Amino acid sequence: MINTLIKKIEQLEAPLVVGLDPMLNFIPEPILQRAYREKGENLDGAASAIWEFNKGIIDAVYDLIPAVKPQIAMYEQFGLEGLRVYKQTIDYCKEKGLVVIGDVKRGDIGSTSAAYATGHLGKVTIGDEDYRGFDEDFITVNPYLGSDGILPFIDVCKQEKKGLFILVKTSNPSSGEFQNQLIGDRPLYELVGQKVAEWGELHMGDSYSYIGAVVGATYPEVGKALRKIMPKTYLLVPGYGAQGGKAEDLADYFNKDGLGVIVNSSRGIIAAYKQKGYEKFGPQDYADASRQAVINMREDIKKAWLKTR
Amino acid sequence: MINTLIKKIEQLEAPLVVGLDPMLNFIPEPILQRAYREKGENLDGAASAIWEFNKGIIDAVYDLIPAVKPQIAMYEQFGLEGLRVYKQTIDYCKEKGLVVIGDVKRGDIGSTSAAYATGHLGKVTIGDEDYRGFDEDFITVNPYLGSDGILPFIDVCKQEKKGLFILVKTSNPSSGEFQNQLIGDRPLYELVGQKVAEWGELHMGDSYSYIGAVVGATYPEVGKALRKIMPKTYLLVPGYGAQGGKAEDLADYFNKDGLGVIVNSSRGIIAAYKQKGYEKFGPQDYADASRQAVINMREDIKKAWLKTR
Repeated sequence: MINTLIKKIEQLEAPLVVGLDPMLNFIPEPILQRAYREKGENLDGAASAIWEFNKGIIDAVYDLIPAVKPQIAMYEQFGLEGLRVYKQTIDYCKEKGLVVIGDVKRGDIGSTSAAYATGHLGKVTIGDEDYRGFDEDFITVNPYLGSDGILPFIDVCKQEKKGLFILVKTSNPSSGEFQNQLIGDRPLYELVGQKVAEWGELHMGDSYSYIGAVVGATYPEVGKALRKIMPKTYLLVPGYGAQGGKAEDLADYFNKDGLGVIVNSSRGIIAAYKQKGYEKFGPQDYADASRQAVINMREDIKKAWLKTR
Repeated sequence: MINTLIKKIEQLEAPLVVGLDPMLNFIPEPILQRAYREKGENLDGAASAIWEFNKGIIDAVYDLIPAVKPQIAMYEQFGLEGLRVYKQTIDYCKEKGLVVIGDVKRGDIGSTSAAYATGHLGKVTIGDEDYRGFDEDFITVNPYLGSDGILPFIDVCKQEKKGLFILVKTSNPSSGEFQNQLIGDRPLYELVGQKVAEWGELHMGDSYSYIGAVVGATYPEVGKALRKIMPKTYLLVPGYGAQGGKAEDLADYFNKDGLGVIVNSSRGIIAAYKQKGYEKFGPQDYADASRQAVINMREDIKKAWLKTR
């Protein structure tokens, strides 16, 4: 799947991923009202509105992008009804040929990580048949519990030719509180990065590992250091756009082959119609606004990217 | 809710929690076959079998214990069908008067943590009505992203009078890989513990904070050190029993008031009928075996507990 992802990034000249992280206040009023009329003004109605909203965006951008990254929390907040739409979104994106990165940030002790891996990447055998739970292509994983919390995910990835992005340095303001603490003369995130590089050797694709890392766009000097520590690791980079990360800061995240990075934008794409520069679209053409925002983002990222090729 | 939990622990003389972490191979064959006949040999059938299994155990032990801790991964592995049973289990346990600790280990950047907090502890307002997703009383949370990933959970806890258990030192063999790394002369888990104590001051109950910590039973000397750093923090202690933690190792986890600890056992209780000493029950009386295992665990823990009172 990492080889597929890279091939798509190269074909589309688009090292970017759209974060499908819907909030109710992103959804144009007509979509919301129609869903409430049809399903009721309740969790089911809200979930249906999210599905309509997502589908509009996916249909408008799927030919421009290699991958999507639905953030499961935005669905989980609506309980079971929300998670039904999370699954519906995954299935629809895969039908459209998109690689799906489930942003689930799971992680636990060994047997529990194995259960998460089964539910998100693998399958359960019941009787003579295999069944799949959420069936993403990649998921994000939290490293705080160490190797025995990570290896069960890698085992399933190897069986399924799927992958992970493990949190190394996150994009949020207080990410440094623990991640930047010095162990000897190195910050914790470097130690985690080194571990990710080691885990990555367990499951290599053609030129990059199936085991990637999450490294925020908001700390460029950190991205540069981590790139050196993890040369064969794909970096999933959140924090571009709404969180303040800029394309020019990302040049050092790329390898000399022009690869190794996939930049995420969520609000900046899916709620583009609400933002400066996209007023002409209006709520009725929210999906066209998202398409334009993807084109603009691709051009913006290309500046950083082309420097490296 | 922390006051309620403590009151129940004192009334029942039982500082313990049963981990409802079902695996298909724990479920007696007749329950499994009945569920497959009724719902089909598929995810729905498996989920129904888990529900029957859980209900049997809950009915057999609810009067002896203050709380249960369903591990969401064990349900999530069966996708949506599994999560339906996770929710059904929560609701049933609450009907039975049990405090429910959702072992979800969520944690993300601020806006995403807010969404998880809404889905598990809070409510969404749609139209004029409030709706609740999973509605646990407590959940477990991962601290790797720092304060701005934790505070949104605490905000919802304050509104709802609910609580958290934040991972500090986990029970698994490789927990030390990152958690034990020395920052200056202190291990990372002590730094996290200190932060948990500070976060805890934001949401105090009568004598303990609503913001607790997860500290594994498998590292007694660590428990002792963390007890001092977090005097008003309730410790949720996994790793007793199947993972190798012993009651006598837990004496220093308790405060002098005999409080401050709730010990989890999962497999040791719910799969007791498969274990040495419980053969006489057999699969048909698996729930009675679980009841006996709770009684035995309570007596075992009491030895450590009484020392401190």
